[in-house]
Amino acid sequence: MKKAVENMDTSTGKKIYNLADRLFPITRSITGKGVRETLEIINNEIKDTGYQLTIHEIPTGTPVFDWTVPKEWVIREAYIENEKHEKIIDFKENNLHVLGYSTPVDEWVELDELLEHVYTQEDMPDAIPYVTSYYKERFGFCMSENTKKSLKKNTKYHMYIDSELIEGSLTIGELIIPATEEVFFDDGGEDKKEILISTYTCHPSMANNECSGPSLSAYLIKYVAALPKRRYSYRFVFNPETIGSITYLSQNLEELKKNIAAGFVLSCVGDNRDYSFIPSRYSDTLADRVIENVLKFKEKYTKYSFLDRGSDERQYCSPGVDLPVIGFCRSKYAKYPEYHTSKDDMTLVSEEGFQGSYEAMCEVINALEYNKNYKTKVLCEPQLGKRGLYPTISKKGSYDSILAMRDLIAYADGRNDLIAISEYINVPVKELIPIVDKLMANDLFESVD
Amino acid sequence: MKKAVENMDTSTGKKIYNLADRLFPITRSITGKGVRETLEIINNEIKDTGYQLTIHEIPTGTPVFDWTVPKEWVIREAYIENEKHEKIIDFKENNLHVLGYSTPVDEWVELDELLEHVYTQEDMPDAIPYVTSYYKERFGFCMSENTKKSLKKNTKYHMYIDSELIEGSLTIGELIIPATEEVFFDDGGEDKKEILISTYTCHPSMANNECSGPSLSAYLIKYVAALPKRRYSYRFVFNPETIGSITYLSQNLEELKKNIAAGFVLSCVGDNRDYSFIPSRYSDTLADRVIENVLKFKEKYTKYSFLDRGSDERQYCSPGVDLPVIGFCRSKYAKYPEYHTSKDDMTLVSEEGFQGSYEAMCEVINALEYNKNYKTKVLCEPQLGKRGLYPTISKKGSYDSILAMRDLIAYADGRNDLIAISEYINVPVKELIPIVDKLMANDLFESVD
Amino acid sequence: MKKAVENMDTSTGKKIYNLADRLFPITRSITGKGVRETLEIINNEIKDTGYQLTIHEIPTGTPVFDWTVPKEWVIREAYIENEKHEKIIDFKENNLHVLGYSTPVDEWVELDELLEHVYTQEDMPDAIPYVTSYYKERFGFCMSENTKKSLKKNTKYHMYIDSELIEGSLTIGELIIPATEEVFFDDGGEDKKEILISTYTCHPSMANNECSGPSLSAYLIKYVAALPKRRYSYRFVFNPETIGSITYLSQNLEELKKNIAAGFVLSCVGDNRDYSFIPSRYSDTLADRVIENVLKFKEKYTKYSFLDRGSDERQYCSPGVDLPVIGFCRSKYAKYPEYHTSKDDMTLVSEEGFQGSYEAMCEVINALEYNKNYKTKVLCEPQLGKRGLYPTISKKGSYDSILAMRDLIAYADGRNDLIAISEYINVPVKELIPIVDKLMANDLFESVD
Repeated sequence: MKKAVENMDTSTGKKIYNLADRLFPITRSITGKGVRETLEIINNEIKDTGYQLTIHEIPTGTPVFDWTVPKEWVIREAYIENEKHEKIIDFKENNLHVLGYSTPVDEWVELDELLEHVYTQEDMPDAIPYVTSYYKERFGFCMSENTKKSLKKNTKYHMYIDSELIEGSLTIGELIIPATEEVFFDDGGEDKKEILISTYTCHPSMANNECSGPSLSAYLIKYVAALPKRRYSYRFVFNPETIGSITYLSQNLEELKKNIAAGFVLSCVGDNRDYSFIPSRYSDTLADRVIENVLKFKEKYTKYSFLDRGSDERQYCSPGVDLPVIGFCRSKYAKYPEYHTSKDDMTLVSEEGFQGSYEAMCEVINALEYNKNYKTKVLCEPQLGKRGLYPTISKKGSYDSILAMRDLIAYADGRNDLIAISEYINVPVKELIPIVDKLMANDLFESVD
Repeated sequence: MKKAVENMDTSTGKKIYNLADRLFPITRSITGKGVRETLEIINNEIKDTGYQLTIHEIPTGTPVFDWTVPKEWVIREAYIENEKHEKIIDFKENNLHVLGYSTPVDEWVELDELLEHVYTQEDMPDAIPYVTSYYKERFGFCMSENTKKSLKKNTKYHMYIDSELIEGSLTIGELIIPATEEVFFDDGGEDKKEILISTYTCHPSMANNECSGPSLSAYLIKYVAALPKRRYSYRFVFNPETIGSITYLSQNLEELKKNIAAGFVLSCVGDNRDYSFIPSRYSDTLADRVIENVLKFKEKYTKYSFLDRGSDERQYCSPGVDLPVIGFCRSKYAKYPEYHTSKDDMTLVSEEGFQGSYEAMCEVINALEYNKNYKTKVLCEPQLGKRGLYPTISKKGSYDSILAMRDLIAYADGRNDLIAISEYINVPVKELIPIVDKLMANDLFESVD
Repeated sequence: MKKAVENMDTSTGKKIYNLADRLFPITRSITGKGVRETLEIINNEIKDTGYQLTIHEIPTGTPVFDWTVPKEWVIREAYIENEKHEKIIDFKENNLHVLGYSTPVDEWVELDELLEHVYTQEDMPDAIPYVTSYYKERFGFCMSENTKKSLKKNTKYHMYIDSELIEGSLTIGELIIPATEEVFFDDGGEDKKEILISTYTCHPSMANNECSGPSLSAYLIKYVAALPKRRYSYRFVFNPETIGSITYLSQNLEELKKNIAAGFVLSCVGDNRDYSFIPSRYSDTLADRVIENVLKFKEKYTKYSFLDRGSDERQYCSPGVDLPVIGFCRSKYAKYPEYHTSKDDMTLVSEEGFQGSYEAMCEVINALEYNKNYKTKVLCEPQLGKRGLYPTISKKGSYDSILAMRDLIAYADGRNDLIAISEYINVPVKELIPIVDKLMANDLFESVD
């Protein structure tokens, strides 16, 4: 694993960006062919790993806990034109122009009536807002406040939407990469033996709040698949937000409760502004511990409250589900100005942003893989000198370079996992991993349960 | 209960003030007819509730733990006059002029000898201090420092006190209002099933540090009696401070230890300066939790230390007694300048002060009544929309109004009582109560043990 | 014990200073006759107590956990001379001039070759650094940077060291002063029944970082021996740092793990700059609690981190050894500028410094002796007045003087030891001890297990 980390390609961010760029134009919603196209592109991207997402189609009408899988939305065309047949807005130019899950319409109306179906973002006059109405049938159009202001009285407008709500299905992509037969430690895997990485595929053309998560997930699939040893299995889930995770949970709850050791919802992971996370309900799970440990050694990060939750951690952490899952973001959804508008485009995300998210999540994975309870095998401090691990001459100042090793040994009493030791001694796990390897090789360390 | 809260009469503070004003002139001590008159007025005030205080008379000499019920003090007259028979001070003008529990005296003396029996408050020269000597027989007079300075040498003074210490009794008032047959929840009441509200009746004419507590208690009796449902029984105790609570505890300890879920000592609850409370010994009881929860959503409050205790929480929280009791005050006794002087009069307390204390204690009672462990009955988030509890269109910003409901549901995992949830989600219990009602009505919530 | 405390001789600091002054000139290392001379002087100093250190000699080559007892170092002469036979440095003038554990040498060399064997402290140009090479055989000289700069090219220097590494032994001094037959409380002593006081004897002429610890220990032996009653036994250990404590632990581990209730490593206890301590691994032992309690009532103190450990607490607190031991210092080793140089001489330590350390450690001992769980024997507050423990007249302000007693009683519920109560009520243990005596004498207190 260390090798994999050292060889980490600094241009991975660029590749993730390019993948996101290909996903960007697709018209996605919580159901429909946009989701399927998205998952097909992901599967194409990860082909070299030998793994493929399994695509699950869950039929309209399937009861999922307190909810029901909705009808599938088919959207073909949507525009408003004026009496001169000039298009005011056209779905072909920006798929945000149509209210998500709009029913069809084909009517000439006065301005007043038109405006009952128009949504804008008043505080950002040149942005098209993203609006949906999944659970009540209505139709509508989204436009910039500027466009709205250009509309005229005493003329008619043609509202046209060619859409259908059909008995179809909801689409979920899933991939489990199993633990390797040869593992790091002789315990043959953990009781809770899976790491969950979940992201969503349900928004149309939004870069950070849609395309970034699936694109990063694809590259984490590549990273995990390339690991020479894996103590954990890795479960990657791509689903439409909220209804998708509810559906997935309703069909896999017992297995997930039994297996998941830590889970991460990836959302808005492409910009380069901040690192942040949304803790689980009591902020006390392995997922909380590992993400905070990794982020605290970065320049700065924001720990939100569970009260700020908004993506699928809402479902994973709900009462009775109680999975150890946190939300990982750069700028958090609903906290950055471009959120849920046409401004959340490919200029908002960057290669650097993706690279940082990728490295952070790889660190998380490595930390989890090495996160055992270690125990020093000798009583009192070991004589590091005779093993070439210590300077042979004692002089003021000469101790500094091996402090991390000595402190790691001092807390390796079998009570602490590696993350806990990292916190006690204030050294990043990624710097402790090579020392663990060295101490294991010198038979000074063992891992205990 | 919600109804009761909504109908809360904003002029209740005025009524409490008027009651305190009637109690003010009475000469009370830890025993004697002043206490009996006080309790009679309280009983008259609560007549409309159908409940009356039971009056307990505990005879002089009764052993009560480490103490003995003292002789009953009878005070008829007390003055100092000069050679011209001019009264320097007269108990008839202010009952603070005589040292509490003074033995009788009838002597003409020189100034030097007189001054051995005179108490003043040097830092407040125009105030008469309140001084007592319950457990060592002596006599004495209290006067302002100014009056003391006006006394002359080379003239004689007549010290006159007509009092007796007789074999009588100590008087305690007690009322238990039982839980109603129909309760909020199907658990038929709690294991610990009583709320204790205790106050003292032992100081002569002091407004905040005497009359405010019994007057507020009387109006809480009215509030509790009017509740349509009560999960808890309510035990109201009126006793002389220290010796009274020791006496009451010595006769009821096992029952109290078995029954009391939370208790409140009311003292100095009539001024309008601050809200404050004195925590229990480890600051960890239900009483501590509910009072701090209610006060933290007010403008400001002071949490004192148990080291600042001074009223009957001293006994209720003593080792081996260990009741979950806190002290509730506006300005805390011994912390405001007028304390234990003639300046603690009816101008120090106000209708607004009483109204605030009354509302705070009603909030405490409501919070206790609703303070169950709730559990959401569906897995994942419930679909609030189909029950009309959620907006049907999703747009940036539209979530805010139902955040409290969503957060309440998210923490309703059966591990937290309502006070704990209020702390987690930072919403006052009084705002959560109507949401609980709504969620119970929609069968989304149940209460668990 | 109270008597002993009250009679504490304020000139004890002077006596400790004088003892340190006698120890200063001796050439000590981790083995050899310097250690034996040091222990002989200690034994001479404590002769009046009737106790003597037992001297243990552990042979070269003895395996001690991961280590082996090294050869014994014999050093007779060491100097560098120039071609005119002028001595550049001479071990006779300052025993720091020779690298600790140097092998012999007798060679005339050019400057370049000489410098390969010369150690200086560049940031303190007039100080000779203290350098050792215990575990790799080499020879070397230490000198000031100024002396080094005065050396000339194109001339020869004579490196001369007359030393030997022989099959000898490592020397440890040990003394156990047993608990007295009559103890404070009727429990006949504790499960964990020893207090450990450990210090080191392995540096040549350094005042604070060598002589201060053994000198203070000698006077604590006198203090403990003079106590009229002892609930605990006291184990004093004098050993060479690191290898000595490893050796001692390897031979006594099971007994120590069974018996030690709290332990203190004394190092750098002679200067008058600061009080400080190095906590145990989790900062949660009785030793941590008592030292912090005593120091927090002093003007100021520094609580270091376990990460700052450097003396024998490294071994006592290592995984699997896990003894409740902390390090006690004034200025902490490695944190003051003179550390491990010739500037750490008898001007750095002072009578005041030693007196302060002595008093702090006596307070620690007294606190441990009295540190029982006390329980008030009456319910509700006891009537202190009838026992002459309370003023008989109640007036604003008159309570203050007995607050400590009342607060002590209020927390004496059998759940807290005396240190915990001191923390709750913010009164030093040394002020609580006479109150405990008074309450025990009045049969108001008992100690519980």
